[in-house]
Amino acid sequence: MGELPTFADVEQSFERIKSYINHTPVMTSRTLNSLIEANIFLKCENFQRIGAFKPRGALNKILQLTEEEKKRGIITHSSGNHAQAVALAGKLLGIKTVVVMPENAPEVKVNATKCYGAEVIRCDNNTESRVQTVQELSKKYGYTLVHAYDDYKIITGAGTAAYEFLKEVGELDFIFFPIGGGGLASGTIIASKGMIPNIEIIGVEPEEANDAFRSIRDDKIYPSPYPNTIADGLRTQLSEKTFRVIKKYNTKIITVSEKEIIDAMKFLWERMKIVVEPSGAVSLAGIFKHKKFLKGKNVGAILSGGNVDLNDFFKSYYDRVSKN
Amino acid sequence: MGELPTFADVEQSFERIKSYINHTPVMTSRTLNSLIEANIFLKCENFQRIGAFKPRGALNKILQLTEEEKKRGIITHSSGNHAQAVALAGKLLGIKTVVVMPENAPEVKVNATKCYGAEVIRCDNNTESRVQTVQELSKKYGYTLVHAYDDYKIITGAGTAAYEFLKEVGELDFIFFPIGGGGLASGTIIASKGMIPNIEIIGVEPEEANDAFRSIRDDKIYPSPYPNTIADGLRTQLSEKTFRVIKKYNTKIITVSEKEIIDAMKFLWERMKIVVEPSGAVSLAGIFKHKKFLKGKNVGAILSGGNVDLNDFFKSYYDRVSKN
Repeated sequence: MGELPTFADVEQSFERIKSYINHTPVMTSRTLNSLIEANIFLKCENFQRIGAFKPRGALNKILQLTEEEKKRGIITHSSGNHAQAVALAGKLLGIKTVVVMPENAPEVKVNATKCYGAEVIRCDNNTESRVQTVQELSKKYGYTLVHAYDDYKIITGAGTAAYEFLKEVGELDFIFFPIGGGGLASGTIIASKGMIPNIEIIGVEPEEANDAFRSIRDDKIYPSPYPNTIADGLRTQLSEKTFRVIKKYNTKIITVSEKEIIDAMKFLWERMKIVVEPSGAVSLAGIFKHKKFLKGKNVGAILSGGNVDLNDFFKSYYDRVSKN
Repeated sequence: MGELPTFADVEQSFERIKSYINHTPVMTSRTLNSLIEANIFLKCENFQRIGAFKPRGALNKILQLTEEEKKRGIITHSSGNHAQAVALAGKLLGIKTVVVMPENAPEVKVNATKCYGAEVIRCDNNTESRVQTVQELSKKYGYTLVHAYDDYKIITGAGTAAYEFLKEVGELDFIFFPIGGGGLASGTIIASKGMIPNIEIIGVEPEEANDAFRSIRDDKIYPSPYPNTIADGLRTQLSEKTFRVIKKYNTKIITVSEKEIIDAMKFLWERMKIVVEPSGAVSLAGIFKHKKFLKGKNVGAILSGGNVDLNDFFKSYYDRVSKN
């Protein structure tokens, strides 16, 4: 698998992608600071293009393809934010893009992916079908796979969120981030430890999908076969590459309950007026849970995305109007 | 009623209140710019303290009370954002604060007002009862009334949002803002015309509560007796003072339908990931409706607040978890 990526790789990734991405804001809240009795800084990747951090990795990967690879095109499989990120990157760089999505992927995500000009190919609702479809098409057409996280270029691209964050807010004592497949986690770890060697790095995972917690504890990658968490971006398992990074840096992993995730999400919407998806609120849930260790500290958290289906919520508004 | 307030009054108001309020961010969106074919800047007062612009006026008023008045205390009546704003201002300045709220005010708003330490006194569900209760208590205890908008100090305080906004974004061709009682509208007009004399000032009002539109057209203040709009912050009628300002500056007033308000609100939540209340989204609804006049222009809008009851929305999340 080669050398682990370094902080210099994150810096180079940032220079490579910075003109394509949003410099997302850091938000603070007096209420939050007073609840935690600490200085809390939230890196709002829900304001990133496509509504999540994912374009950082996709762009970093695709910008490093050879001209020949770019000509042949790219492919990925995803039912979530990665699909739109790859589609956006393909569009921005003028590269043919194919996204394999399961039959049960929400229409709203399929349409968003198509809107960026990607070709969407449906497959059966299981990982094997997704992987097999991608392999067949790659073989037939020579597409390059843009994996959602098992790729050091995706990892260092994802790490640019923490890089931007720490450059802006300076010395933090802690940084909290969600762990799903481990791409954002690995990138955040490399960037944060590169900039602040003493920073405590805390990955937060839903109890309902605690495969990373168990994988690090037992030193072997566990699958995440039937995760039931509402944090749909965190249902995936670690890969060889993300496992290596997370293990090397002695990352602390804590878990949060479904209720704790919703409480954090509700706080962000109600009190801070920002739309954050369950996976994105997991890091703040970790801060609430870990509160007693944070008193008086400077604490960062990455809010990874904000894509939530709001159709039902707004239907109640539209219904009310049509009744009048 | 004395002289109309001037731009200098807005500047002084800003200096007076600036250490107590949030400098709220200005947000932009590539998608929005491309939909309108213009450069759109959104002043996000949903990120203001208490979730709306209202503390600007309340603080500006209360900071100018005499020591004697401060000692006696302040009073207001409101079922909305103004209640919390006055309660916050009273708390920050250590002044006894009484808020008269109708029996049918949502418990969540009553509790939020109490949380800031204000004394809440309930009254019947009509304007007469609210006004009468305030008058009786003011007479008995010597409280000073902090009206929601019929007060030049409230108006120039509210104008500091536009002042901050235009100082940050520079020359705009248009500024859109909601019109309810006319406090934010009047302040925005004075600030904007003071800074950019040629700016076009456009007040936006729900069709369902178009009393300001009719009042300016017919040169007399119409009441707003049974407004049915979801934009609950805009159900009030103009006052003598706000009518004078809005008329003097030849403000253009346009109206938007309930559906147009919800469409704008949905855009802000879904695409821009910010929680904005219906009254706050009305200005963007005006931009969408007015699109054909805006091509290539620099256009600002004030998003006045973000206080929405999210309990039903989150109940569906909590229910889902408790079922597992």
